[in-house]
Amino acid sequence: MTETTDRAALDALLREDLRGASPYGAPQLDVPVRLNTNESSYPVPAEVVADITARVAAVAPSLNRYPDREFTELRTALAAYLTSTSGVVVGPAQVWAGNGSNEVLQHVVLAFGGPGRTALGFTPAYSMHPLISTGTGMAWVDGLRGSGPDAPFDLTVESAVAQVREHQPHVVFLCSPNNPTGTALSLEVVEAVYAAAERAVVVVDEAYAEFARPGTPSALTLLEGRPRLVVTRTMSKAFAFAGGRLGYLAADPALVDALRLVRLPYHLSAPTQAIALGALAHADQMLGTVEAIKEQRDRMVTRLAELGYAPVASDANFVLFGGLVDAADTWRALLDRGVLVRDVGIPHYLRVTAGTPAETDAFLAAVAEIADTATDRSAS
Amino acid sequence: MTETTDRAALDALLREDLRGASPYGAPQLDVPVRLNTNESSYPVPAEVVADITARVAAVAPSLNRYPDREFTELRTALAAYLTSTSGVVVGPAQVWAGNGSNEVLQHVVLAFGGPGRTALGFTPAYSMHPLISTGTGMAWVDGLRGSGPDAPFDLTVESAVAQVREHQPHVVFLCSPNNPTGTALSLEVVEAVYAAAERAVVVVDEAYAEFARPGTPSALTLLEGRPRLVVTRTMSKAFAFAGGRLGYLAADPALVDALRLVRLPYHLSAPTQAIALGALAHADQMLGTVEAIKEQRDRMVTRLAELGYAPVASDANFVLFGGLVDAADTWRALLDRGVLVRDVGIPHYLRVTAGTPAETDAFLAAVAEIADTATDRSAS
Repeated sequence: MTETTDRAALDALLREDLRGASPYGAPQLDVPVRLNTNESSYPVPAEVVADITARVAAVAPSLNRYPDREFTELRTALAAYLTSTSGVVVGPAQVWAGNGSNEVLQHVVLAFGGPGRTALGFTPAYSMHPLISTGTGMAWVDGLRGSGPDAPFDLTVESAVAQVREHQPHVVFLCSPNNPTGTALSLEVVEAVYAAAERAVVVVDEAYAEFARPGTPSALTLLEGRPRLVVTRTMSKAFAFAGGRLGYLAADPALVDALRLVRLPYHLSAPTQAIALGALAHADQMLGTVEAIKEQRDRMVTRLAELGYAPVASDANFVLFGGLVDAADTWRALLDRGVLVRDVGIPHYLRVTAGTPAETDAFLAAVAEIADTATDRSAS
Repeated sequence: MTETTDRAALDALLREDLRGASPYGAPQLDVPVRLNTNESSYPVPAEVVADITARVAAVAPSLNRYPDREFTELRTALAAYLTSTSGVVVGPAQVWAGNGSNEVLQHVVLAFGGPGRTALGFTPAYSMHPLISTGTGMAWVDGLRGSGPDAPFDLTVESAVAQVREHQPHVVFLCSPNNPTGTALSLEVVEAVYAAAERAVVVVDEAYAEFARPGTPSALTLLEGRPRLVVTRTMSKAFAFAGGRLGYLAADPALVDALRLVRLPYHLSAPTQAIALGALAHADQMLGTVEAIKEQRDRMVTRLAELGYAPVASDANFVLFGGLVDAADTWRALLDRGVLVRDVGIPHYLRVTAGTPAETDAFLAAVAEIADTATDRSAS
C-alpha cells in the first residue's frame, strides 16, 4: 500500500475549517531590537534565578511522581498576589492556572462554549480568542469597535450592549487593556456587558493590567456578586516571565470548579509550579521594571505623534501607531534597520513593544528616518 | 443584582454533556504504598537532578523571553531516543510534544476530529481517550473487546476491522500495551485497522511501550508508508518523569505539521524543554529501573494467580487482576492495609502498579491476607 505523504493528501482528513490555515505566531527572527511580542526586555534578576534554581533542585528528585493536580500552593500564591495588587480579596478557590493564559482561556471555552454555541469578541483584540473558540467547534462573531473616525478602536457601552443583545453569545471576550490597540476599557462597559449577556460567561482578558495608567481599576473589583465573570491574567508581560508559561484567572469558586471538568489531568508540571512560586516570591523584583517600561511607552507615544505618526493611547507595554501609508512596507523598512515590530493585520497600523531606553532610541531613530515616506502626513 | 454562586446555577451555563460530571483523576491519598497511578517508585538519580538543575539555571535568566515555539532541540533529542530504542529511524520533523501525552492526543483530535466527527476506541482502554475526544465535540464510540470468557480483553483483527467498518470513524484509538488491562496488541491488528479505516487517523498509544515483554515490536516500525498513523509516547512511565509532564508522538511530517494549526503558541515552557532535555541526556539512567520493575510485575502476576486471583498478562508496569467478589470492597480492604491501588471501573477487577520489591512485598502480603474473602475461588 503506497500513500503520498504530502500536506495536500492529509488536508482531506483535516477539519474543514483548518484547511489552508497557517499556524498562529509572530516570526521569530534574530534581530538586534525585538519589539514584536510584548515580552519584557529585562532579564530575570540573579537573585530570582538562584531561588528558581533552588526550587527546581528541591522538586527534581521526585519528578518520578505526578505533580499536585490541584496546584494548591501556587493557587494560594497567585491569590495573594492579586489581593495585594488589586485591593480586592481573592481566595485560592477563586484562582485557576494553566500553561499560559491561552490554556485557561481554552478551559473556559471548553466548559462553557463548544459546538452549537457562540462566542463574541470586539475586533481588533487578542487574535487567539477566536482561534481558541473556533477550535472547540464554537461559532465566533467578530464584534465591532469604533465610535467615529477619531476613535476607531473605542468600545462604548451602547455599542457593546447592542451587539451582545443581537448575537446572544455564550461567551463574551473583553480585552482590557486591549491588545493590540493598547487602551483599557472602562468598567462601565464590563458591567453593562455582564448585565446584558444574561446567559454568558464574560471574560475580561487583563494580560497587560499591570501597565495601565493611574486610575484604571481592574475588573477584579467587579467579581463580587458576578458568578459568570472571569478575569484572566498572565505572568508573561509585566512579570517578565514569558518563558515560564504561566497564565491564570480569577472567578467565582463554582466557575473555577467547572474548569476541573475540562482540564487535562496534571496539566501543570511540578517544575512549572515550583518556578512560578519562585517568581511570585519575588514579585516586587519581577515587577521592578514596570514603571521604567511605562516611561518608554509614553516616550514613544509622544515622539511618534511629533513625527507625524498616529499613536493610540496605551495602558499596556506596547503602542499601536497608525498614519502609515503601507503597514507592510514600514514593517520591512524597520526590519532593515534592525528593529522588529509586529504587523497585527490592521491596515495602516503597526504595534511596537516598549523595552529598554536603548531599544526605544533605536526604534525612534528608525521611525524618524523613514517618517517622510512611511506616514501619510503629506496627504493630510 | 444578586445571583447565587452555587454550582447548580452555573450548571445551566455549562455544556450539556458536562452537567453532573466529575473531574478525571485518581484519589491523591497520603498512603504508605501508592500503587495507583502507574508512576515509577524510583526517584530521579542525583546526577540527573544536578544536570536538570544546571539546565534550569542556564535558561532562567532569559525567562523574560518566550520559549522556542518549535522546541527544535527537544524534538531532535526525542527523535534520537526513538531511533536508538526502536530500531526505526525517526527524524525531528516526525516528532511532536506536549505537556503530557494527553496534550498531544488533544492536538490530534483538535486537528482531525471535532464536531460532526467520530472517534472509536476499544473499551476498556485509557479513559482519557473518550474525554479528550468528546471535549472537542466529537462523538465517541465505545468499541468492544473480548474473544470469549477466557480472553475478555483481547482485541482480534476480525473484531477490530468489523467495528471500524461499522462506525467509519475519523480517529481510531488503539492502546498498546493496553491500559488498564496490560497486554500489548499484535501489530497485525494495527495494520488491519489502518487499512480498514481509510479516512481515519489511527493513534497507537504506547505510553507503556518500554515495559513490553521481549518480542513485542513498537508500532513505530509501521510508520513508513502510513501517513495517517500516529504513535504516542510519554516520559511519565518508564522514564520515571511523571512530574515533568512530557508526552510526545511520532508520525508523518505532514501530519505533525497539521498539529501546529491547533497547538496553543509556546505551549512548552523553556524550563519544560530544558528539563526534558536533561532527562533525555541521561536516558540510560532514567530507564535503569525498567528491568527491575518488570521483575516485580511478573512476580505479582505469578503470586496473584497462586493466591486465587485472576491476573491479566502484562506488558506494562502494572497488573490488572480479577476474580474479585467486589472490586470496591477489595480496594478498601487494601487501603486499610496501607496499599493504594486503582479501581478502574471494571467489575471484579483492580489495577496495581509494579513498584519496588518492598512495595510488592506489602501488596502481596495484603492480598494474601484478604484472599479468602476477596476472591470468588470458593465459588469456582
